Amino acid sequence: MDNRPIGIFDSGVGGLTVVREVINFLPNENIIYFGDTLRCPYGSKDLNDVRKFVFEIIDFLLNEDVKSIVIACNTGTAAGLYEAQSKFKLPIIGVIEPGARGAVLSTRNKKVGVIGTVGTINSGAYQRVIKTLDAGIKVYSNACPEFVEFVERGETTGMKIKKIGEIYLQSLKEAGVDTLILGCTHYPLLSGLIQEIMGSSVKLISSAAETAKELKELIERKEIMREENSPPFYRFLSTGDIKLFLELGKKFLGKEITTVEKVSLSREGVKG
Amino acid sequence: MDNRPIGIFDSGVGGLTVVREVINFLPNENIIYFGDTLRCPYGSKDLNDVRKFVFEIIDFLLNEDVKSIVIACNTGTAAGLYEAQSKFKLPIIGVIEPGARGAVLSTRNKKVGVIGTVGTINSGAYQRVIKTLDAGIKVYSNACPEFVEFVERGETTGMKIKKIGEIYLQSLKEAGVDTLILGCTHYPLLSGLIQEIMGSSVKLISSAAETAKELKELIERKEIMREENSPPFYRFLSTGDIKLFLELGKKFLGKEITTVEKVSLSREGVKG
Repeated sequence: MDNRPIGIFDSGVGGLTVVREVINFLPNENIIYFGDTLRCPYGSKDLNDVRKFVFEIIDFLLNEDVKSIVIACNTGTAAGLYEAQSKFKLPIIGVIEPGARGAVLSTRNKKVGVIGTVGTINSGAYQRVIKTLDAGIKVYSNACPEFVEFVERGETTGMKIKKIGEIYLQSLKEAGVDTLILGCTHYPLLSGLIQEIMGSSVKLISSAAETAKELKELIERKEIMREENSPPFYRFLSTGDIKLFLELGKKFLGKEITTVEKVSLSREGVKG
Repeated sequence: MDNRPIGIFDSGVGGLTVVREVINFLPNENIIYFGDTLRCPYGSKDLNDVRKFVFEIIDFLLNEDVKSIVIACNTGTAAGLYEAQSKFKLPIIGVIEPGARGAVLSTRNKKVGVIGTVGTINSGAYQRVIKTLDAGIKVYSNACPEFVEFVERGETTGMKIKKIGEIYLQSLKEAGVDTLILGCTHYPLLSGLIQEIMGSSVKLISSAAETAKELKELIERKEIMREENSPPFYRFLSTGDIKLFLELGKKFLGKEITTVEKVSLSREGVKG
C-alpha cells in the first residue's frame, strides 16, 4: 500500500496519451504530470542534453514525493532510462520496452515497423529491446521529425500532415510490416491518419496503452497501490505556455484536466 | 484462429510445471509435450550440444504441425532460443524473459536472485534480460546443479535435499534479495523447501506461471486461438523411460496425463 502519486513526464502534451491510459487502467491512483513544453520538442536535440532534462525532471518529481515514475516520452526513454534506473531508487519505467513487447507479441510475419523522433530512431533502442525479446524479428524504422510539432499545434488532420505522413511511412509499407509501433507519445493523436496510410490490416501499437498496462502490473506486483477511497487527484505542471497546454490537454486527455500549474525547474532549486 | 496444437518441450519432466500453468491459462488449447528424458539433464552439458538438441526437438514438433513452441527449459532457452527464433518461422518463446520480467515487476529493493543449472547461470542470460528491462537491478545468481536430479527422482523433501538447498541458497539470503527466480522448470517442485529456507518475505518467481501468462497474451494478440468446442487433447512424448515419466507426470501435472508415448528422435528421420 502506498498512497503517494505516480509521476509521469514528457517533453510536452504528448505524454497525456499515457496519462489517459493510466487513468483507465489505474483509476484510483493520484497522478502528477510534468510537461516540459518550454524545451519541447526533445526529438531533435542531442541525447546527452535530453538525459540531463530527464534527470532534472525526476529530481523535481522526487521533491513532489512520487512513488514511481513513468518517462512518458520515447526520446527521454532512449536518452536516459537506463541511467535513471541506475541512479534513482524508486521504480522508473519508460515507454520503449512496453511498446516493443506489445509488437513482438502481436506480429505474425515477424516484420515490425517503428516510427519515432530522430533521437529515438537513431538511438536504436527499439531494435535492441525487440531483438532481446525475439531475435527473429526484422525491424524497419523511420524517423518522422515533423509529426510532433503538428500534434503540439493541434494540427492532426488535413492535407499537409497527410502528405508528410505518406512520405514518412512509404518505406515501412513497402517492407510489408504487419505491426507498427507508434514510438512517440504524440503519435496516437495521428493514429487515424497513420492507419489510413498503412492500411487496415496493419496493427498499430501505442506505447501509451502498453505502458499503462505494464505500470498497472508493476504497481500491483510491488503492492504499492493507493488504498484511500477518496477520489484521486490529478495535477498538471508545465514549464511553458499553460493556456495552450490546457487547450490541447482537454483535447488529448478529456475532462480530468481542469487547471495547469506553471513551474520552472530552476526556481525549484534544481540545477539546470 | 488456429486449431493446431502448441508444442512444449523440456529435457525431462520439469517442463510439466509449465504445461500445468498453460492448461490453467489456456484451457481450450491442444498441447504436445516432449520430454527428452533420455538425455536429461541438460544443465551440466555443453551449451552447443544443448542447442543441437533444441533444434532437433523443434524439427520433430514441426513435423507434428504445432502452431507455436515453448522451450520450457531454462538451459535450452539460454542455449538456443535466439538462434531458434531466427531459424524457424513460427513463434517460439522461452522461459527466461517471462521469469525475468516477473521479477523486475515484483522486486521492491531492486535485488533479485536467480537459481538455475550450471548452463543457465553461466550463460548470463537472466542477467542480460533483467538489465534490459531495468538497468538498476542488482542480480545475484547461483547454480544448483543437484536439484534437477532430485526432482527427476521424485525426491523433493527430506533432510538430504534440505541440507543441499541451504548451501545453495546461503549467498542469496545474505545478499538480501527480496525476489528469487526459480530459473529451472524443475524448481517449482521444490518451492516449499526454497521458501522455507529463504523466509516467507522473499517472493518466488516461477517461470512456469509467467511463461504461461505470456503465451496466453501471444496466442490472443496474434489471434491464433483454438476455436473448436470439443475438449482439447494432451499428448506426452518421451525419449526415455515412459513408466517413470507417467508416474512423475501424474505427481507434477495431475489427471491430464494418462499415457506417455515413447519416441526416438533418430527414428523420426531427424539427424541426431
